[in-house]
Amino acid sequence: MKYLLTVAYRGDGFCGFQFQPDRRTVQGTLTQAFSSLFEGPVAVTGCSRTDSGVHATGARVTVLPVPGAPAIAPAVLPLAVARFLPEDISVLEARQVPDDFHPRYDATGKEYLYRVLNTPVHSPFLRGLVWHVPKRITDDMVTRMQSQACQFIGTHDFTSFMAKGAQTRRYVRTVRSFTVQRVGDEIHFTVSADGFLYNMVRIMTGTLLDLAYGRLDRPVGEILQLRDRTAAGCTAPPDGLYLARVFYSNV
Amino acid sequence: MKYLLTVAYRGDGFCGFQFQPDRRTVQGTLTQAFSSLFEGPVAVTGCSRTDSGVHATGARVTVLPVPGAPAIAPAVLPLAVARFLPEDISVLEARQVPDDFHPRYDATGKEYLYRVLNTPVHSPFLRGLVWHVPKRITDDMVTRMQSQACQFIGTHDFTSFMAKGAQTRRYVRTVRSFTVQRVGDEIHFTVSADGFLYNMVRIMTGTLLDLAYGRLDRPVGEILQLRDRTAAGCTAPPDGLYLARVFYSNV
Repeated sequence: MKYLLTVAYRGDGFCGFQFQPDRRTVQGTLTQAFSSLFEGPVAVTGCSRTDSGVHATGARVTVLPVPGAPAIAPAVLPLAVARFLPEDISVLEARQVPDDFHPRYDATGKEYLYRVLNTPVHSPFLRGLVWHVPKRITDDMVTRMQSQACQFIGTHDFTSFMAKGAQTRRYVRTVRSFTVQRVGDEIHFTVSADGFLYNMVRIMTGTLLDLAYGRLDRPVGEILQLRDRTAAGCTAPPDGLYLARVFYSNV
Repeated sequence: MKYLLTVAYRGDGFCGFQFQPDRRTVQGTLTQAFSSLFEGPVAVTGCSRTDSGVHATGARVTVLPVPGAPAIAPAVLPLAVARFLPEDISVLEARQVPDDFHPRYDATGKEYLYRVLNTPVHSPFLRGLVWHVPKRITDDMVTRMQSQACQFIGTHDFTSFMAKGAQTRRYVRTVRSFTVQRVGDEIHFTVSADGFLYNMVRIMTGTLLDLAYGRLDRPVGEILQLRDRTAAGCTAPPDGLYLARVFYSNV
């Protein structure tokens, strides 16, 4: 039986999602926990290779135990595996999927949230969980960032918003929505797309803030057309980034 | 110049507020930071001796440097002291107060928040910050807890809701408000009073949950009248407790 899980984790204690020998990773930690639960080898496959420090509130992961492993009903899996998991990772939900389901290739889109804390001093409760930007962001700046963010919506070549040196075959993505809103002391950047290039959300967020503070003056539409990473703004740190949702049409 | 500060801290890294030799405390940490900032001894006085593990979002503390210490404008104090403070404590605000102001004796009341996380599995983002209660709390249970909580409101002898063995001269307190509400996946217990006995909020919260789950059947009004700690429910753990506000009439 193949399981599709919804997983939450704090990224600041992991060297990213993807397995690396001798490093603490999300994939490695899940593999170890499920191997203990199923008393044998399991294949753990992710939907996205989040970087070190990046969090997830709704990552999707499949787990496939070897044939003959104990049968565990999906409904009880989150609690059953909890005692094998460390404090910074939780399985929120599990369901059964067909054996040919792939959490990455079957995804039709993803949604990320980027959280900026805009207070003069950092909060002791949000260390590692937000990007602390002390300089005041006014309502007018939020409005201007939302207006610029709307230029990301649609199908574009996002080369300007990809980390230099990243490997990919295709630079075109479709951004479906991008909202910038104040939530208490924070500014939340929420972006949904069919897929993302490497560091794309962090560079989009950094660019919107650079535009708001007047450190950049070229509008987003022009930066997109230049297809040049140096035309865009800074890469926001991983701390504020959350993989929030993964969309599928077949489950 | 005497300063009145608003301070936030994560309680799980401190052995409570009050200074203890060789222990990491909030008072000790603040004293050290302000001694460095003012380059000499300072008197740090708190409004409340929160226990180990208890948090604050709005604690009030006074700082009195010795005569001749560098003069620092209150408006810049939060940022100035930030570089001497560890990550789990922040000074949010500072103002000048008269030399005879006392943050504890001049307080006319306090407000505490208690956060219960009601999800099947714990959240990796809320470890140490909530009491995780996995068994489902229905809307009907929230309504019944709010109804019981209203019986706390007014002036009562709170002996039943004080930790056994605690020392005090007076067991009467006036609870001004008590709300129980669902906030997303959490239940928030918010209580305001002229003062609190030792462990009072934690025992009130534990009792309301015990009543909701049917582990106790005596209503709050009767438990108050008995003046007997054993008549009340469990003491909720420190993790979920926040000192939220301190009220003064003279500043």
